[in-house]
Amino acid sequence: MSEEMNAIAKQFTDFYYNTFDTDRSGLAALYRDHSMLSWEGTPLLGAPAIMQRLQELPFTAVQHRVLTLDAQPASSTEPAILVLVTGQLLVDDGSNILQYSQMFHLKPENGSYFVQNDVFRLVYG
Amino acid sequence: MSEEMNAIAKQFTDFYYNTFDTDRSGLAALYRDHSMLSWEGTPLLGAPAIMQRLQELPFTAVQHRVLTLDAQPASSTEPAILVLVTGQLLVDDGSNILQYSQMFHLKPENGSYFVQNDVFRLVYG
Repeated sequence: MSEEMNAIAKQFTDFYYNTFDTDRSGLAALYRDHSMLSWEGTPLLGAPAIMQRLQELPFTAVQHRVLTLDAQPASSTEPAILVLVTGQLLVDDGSNILQYSQMFHLKPENGSYFVQNDVFRLVYG
Repeated sequence: MSEEMNAIAKQFTDFYYNTFDTDRSGLAALYRDHSMLSWEGTPLLGAPAIMQRLQELPFTAVQHRVLTLDAQPASSTEPAILVLVTGQLLVDDGSNILQYSQMFHLKPENGSYFVQNDVFRLVYG
């Protein structure tokens, strides 16, 4: 059960960051009207507002590198999952490497998962 | 409502880190038998196992400095809160400064909150 949860968290973050880095518009499928994203302290509600913010980000090429990934069950009544990622963001030609932390609250829906909560923060060393 | 949630998150983290830094044993009141902590990738279940790990940590003096704090509602049916903290850990005489990220899932109980989920990670720059 715990292994299955970790596998789902890994599969989700692989898909999320690969989509972010190659075709950001594809992330829309992961958010719902009641989804929340806090992006660097700015709260956004709902897939349209979230997607607008993500597509406005001022870098054209980006690559996420996951360094740590932890998952825990979020609920005793449904297979929801909390995920904490710490990693590196390689921006534009990769000359600029930023540290980040991101938290996801994944909720089950029709055999898959959507993002109910999402908090993203750059970490300055 | 959102301001109240942010105030609760701030109050909680102030209390949590002040207790951690001054009398770590006091954190026991914040965990339950079903609480989970992932500490640097090690999963722990229940207040006794969590407290044993926290009290075994190999530093005698520590100070947390919160740099960012984000809170979101975790549920539509109860006032549970998700919190993501990024900050600095000043260990021993403060000569050693580490970056960290910590996620909390706070659940309401009798007018207060306990920690259902807790993930802690050091962030290496």
